[in-house]
Amino acid sequence: MTIFSKIIKGDIPCYKVAVAFLDIAPLQKGHTLVVPKREVDYFFDLSDEEIGRMQIFAKHVAEAIKKAIPCVKVGQAVLGLEVPHAHVHLVPMQRENDLNFANKKLELSPEEMKAIAASIAAHF
Amino acid sequence: MTIFSKIIKGDIPCYKVAVAFLDIAPLQKGHTLVVPKREVDYFFDLSDEEIGRMQIFAKHVAEAIKKAIPCVKVGQAVLGLEVPHAHVHLVPMQRENDLNFANKKLELSPEEMKAIAASIAAHF
Repeated sequence: MTIFSKIIKGDIPCYKVAVAFLDIAPLQKGHTLVVPKREVDYFFDLSDEEIGRMQIFAKHVAEAIKKAIPCVKVGQAVLGLEVPHAHVHLVPMQRENDLNFANKKLELSPEEMKAIAASIAAHF
Repeated sequence: MTIFSKIIKGDIPCYKVAVAFLDIAPLQKGHTLVVPKREVDYFFDLSDEEIGRMQIFAKHVAEAIKKAIPCVKVGQAVLGLEVPHAHVHLVPMQRENDLNFANKKLELSPEEMKAIAASIAAHF
């Protein structure tokens, strides 16, 4: 295991800037959250520099999701009325309604979640 | 009327980079679209430079919307399965479900639309 893998695993501390991880209540398989390290409640309170960088990072994550999960497009949403820490949702879509947060969330096993994360990570 | 107003009105041509305008089928009053001039179908096919700039522009538009339209936050969404020209939705939100594209769209009069656009523009 490399030092970087130890950092990602959490065994070695690091100064994170931003993180992408699977939503534990996914609308679709591969539903990912992109989160800035800094605890900002409102997405549009990020600085121009931060929000531009976040969007570029989200784009790269979306590209990996699209390679890992068969879909027409990856949709993006920022709602922000529940968790007071800005985050971008990236959701693989087959149709418009796949980005509807009123839809029932999927219940995936830890094994499925692990496999999806590994597949997206392999394409990042 | 200044030369810039004539450009915005469309009386004088210009080389546009990006545009923000009201969605004609709004989820909420103030629902705005931010669109890059370049006809790219898929949002994540924009270059890093373009997508970063788009997000910064969208942030500034969102700030103006929040000043013009009473709301808790402005939400953001990119779906992209209908019009094949990348666009960012900015929607004033009171609650999570306000960014649900399955909701009935508002029917606003041209006068209301004009007043909303003028108010957002005044805060931009």
